[in-house]
Amino acid sequence: MEFFKKKRIFLDHASATPVLKEARLAMEKYFTDEFYNPSAIYAEGVKARRDLGAFREKVARHLHAGAKDIVFTSGGTESDNLAILGTFEKAAESVLLPHLVISELEHPAILEAAEEVKRRGGDYTIVRADEEGIIRPEKIEKAITKDTVLVSVSMAAGSIGVVQPISKIGRLIREARKKNNSSYPYFHTDATAAANYASLNVDALSVDLLTLDGAKMYAPKGSGVLVVRPGIELSPMIVGGGQERGLRAGTENLPSIAGFAAAFDVAVRDREKESLRLLALRNKLLAAVQNIKGSFVIGSPDNLLPNVLAVSFPGQISEFLAISLDQKGICVSAGAACQSQNDSTDDLALRFSLGRSTTEKDIENTITALKEIVMRA
Amino acid sequence: MEFFKKKRIFLDHASATPVLKEARLAMEKYFTDEFYNPSAIYAEGVKARRDLGAFREKVARHLHAGAKDIVFTSGGTESDNLAILGTFEKAAESVLLPHLVISELEHPAILEAAEEVKRRGGDYTIVRADEEGIIRPEKIEKAITKDTVLVSVSMAAGSIGVVQPISKIGRLIREARKKNNSSYPYFHTDATAAANYASLNVDALSVDLLTLDGAKMYAPKGSGVLVVRPGIELSPMIVGGGQERGLRAGTENLPSIAGFAAAFDVAVRDREKESLRLLALRNKLLAAVQNIKGSFVIGSPDNLLPNVLAVSFPGQISEFLAISLDQKGICVSAGAACQSQNDSTDDLALRFSLGRSTTEKDIENTITALKEIVMRA
Repeated sequence: MEFFKKKRIFLDHASATPVLKEARLAMEKYFTDEFYNPSAIYAEGVKARRDLGAFREKVARHLHAGAKDIVFTSGGTESDNLAILGTFEKAAESVLLPHLVISELEHPAILEAAEEVKRRGGDYTIVRADEEGIIRPEKIEKAITKDTVLVSVSMAAGSIGVVQPISKIGRLIREARKKNNSSYPYFHTDATAAANYASLNVDALSVDLLTLDGAKMYAPKGSGVLVVRPGIELSPMIVGGGQERGLRAGTENLPSIAGFAAAFDVAVRDREKESLRLLALRNKLLAAVQNIKGSFVIGSPDNLLPNVLAVSFPGQISEFLAISLDQKGICVSAGAACQSQNDSTDDLALRFSLGRSTTEKDIENTITALKEIVMRA
Repeated sequence: MEFFKKKRIFLDHASATPVLKEARLAMEKYFTDEFYNPSAIYAEGVKARRDLGAFREKVARHLHAGAKDIVFTSGGTESDNLAILGTFEKAAESVLLPHLVISELEHPAILEAAEEVKRRGGDYTIVRADEEGIIRPEKIEKAITKDTVLVSVSMAAGSIGVVQPISKIGRLIREARKKNNSSYPYFHTDATAAANYASLNVDALSVDLLTLDGAKMYAPKGSGVLVVRPGIELSPMIVGGGQERGLRAGTENLPSIAGFAAAFDVAVRDREKESLRLLALRNKLLAAVQNIKGSFVIGSPDNLLPNVLAVSFPGQISEFLAISLDQKGICVSAGAACQSQNDSTDDLALRFSLGRSTTEKDIENTITALKEIVMRA
């Protein structure tokens, strides 16, 4: 196709990332030479099982978790669903009307799972963000009832990139548990958008359940993790073979898991350097956007992921702006914040999400293109 | 490792298959150059969406189904779960106590999903195989009640390889629906073990739901399909994004889907030739096994998949036999038929499953090794 010949600028890393070379190399042998089933009893199966264990330990180390806490899934959506529905189904054995507390900024995988909980006889409360896009811990505290079995707040919503006070929320939930002498509520965070840039120490964060999605971490699509801390009890969603401690049945996808572990290694290795590099580029884009008359930046810049900028231009339809940018060779996402009901983020936003491929030249060209389009519109 | 230097003989293709070169080549570009999200609105996203549609059409053609009937999943276990639990949850909206009819030979992904249905307030009946390992249509008919919403019988259980009378069962179920003027029961078949060797014309088979697992079809692990025929209504298991007609949320795993479609092409192209080749090799193994005193072959040889031979040696523990074969460089599976409650198949079986890599020499060496082990034991 014509447009693939010209260099395109990809600023939608929050929606997809290419697979790193390190990840592809790690996967290769498991497609062909070592394709064996980790459940098989012969030597090749034993080797596959051992490799699987090594990947599990590697991933666990990056999270300061135990190897047993790592449940490999088919991706972020499945991990989110398992956290929500798995907690609900298990809790329904002992709690009459299990209740969830969910932030309004959550991914549809969480919001729709909460709806499914309602359909199955539970209930949930949505907590709104303040005008800076922050979910205030006090509001979470107020929303918790005696029947609350799970609180779910993303580390940073991919849609707007505002980093949430996860460890504060985590601590207050632990206090609520102690006070009520209950094992509930659990605390789940979706770390998908934050994973490349934030430290993911599950102890420091005081989280019980944490979602990772390989497709946003330069690992293969179809790879993901749900961290399930000791003592946290879930019912499985997918049954029939007992894999992943009985929490996720199906032959383990060893090539994909190998790729995920390799990409996670690189993410952790480059986290600081890449965060600083992207922060500088993003801030350059931010400054230019703030100079465009009528622009409205979502969230306080001090509080954003280093690679995300969500901006609306009231009176202009961001989907049209995205299409115009596409025609100028720039890939961005539109309407990512549309699920928000909060006044401050009610407009559809144009989301720029930077990543490994992003250069200073990309940002300069994007600024030029954006100015032309917005001024003309 | 030492043993990888010597040529090993892999006779466990029913548990895992390497990824075909054609499939790997089809996947490659989607890992790196065309890694985009099919939901994105820019040109690259549109291209990804178009490619996804083309793969869907290609897969549908091989099944004589419509493109809309193809739901891509993370593998056979998920497909089986979605068929069972998706039917149950949807049916529970209109049927008070939804009931399933399941053959005893089903994969744990189906048997445990049936248990989950029971836990959620439904029920199920297990239909036993006859002494030849066949699920008789009359027995299915008898087991169907007015509350039966789904019948599930594998095209051939991977454990013993006996091919079941699917189209007969399919036709009697259609008649039962007509007689009762009901859209239930649906008919599901797991075609995982049969897919490389049997024709999968969903119309000719009269099936409503059909499972395929890429991991057993020389496609990548983590790829799979559930065929859902028009008018068949399921609730999704994984929610939050509306992908796959709302039946399976999560960013589409385009590399994996590309690999699946390419491997399926090869499977269909080589089906006849490969079936005949493996049948000859399997029959050579069968004849030798029948000559070993005390051997008991499971199923009638006329009625087996061309690549499977399950055999028990009463009084000998098949797991020990498998370990002894492993020591002689031969990979087979043990105990695959252990879930069977039927008298004739109650012994643990040693399962040989042949595949693309299997040569005449492999079979000869296996016969020699097996004789040595069984005679000595």
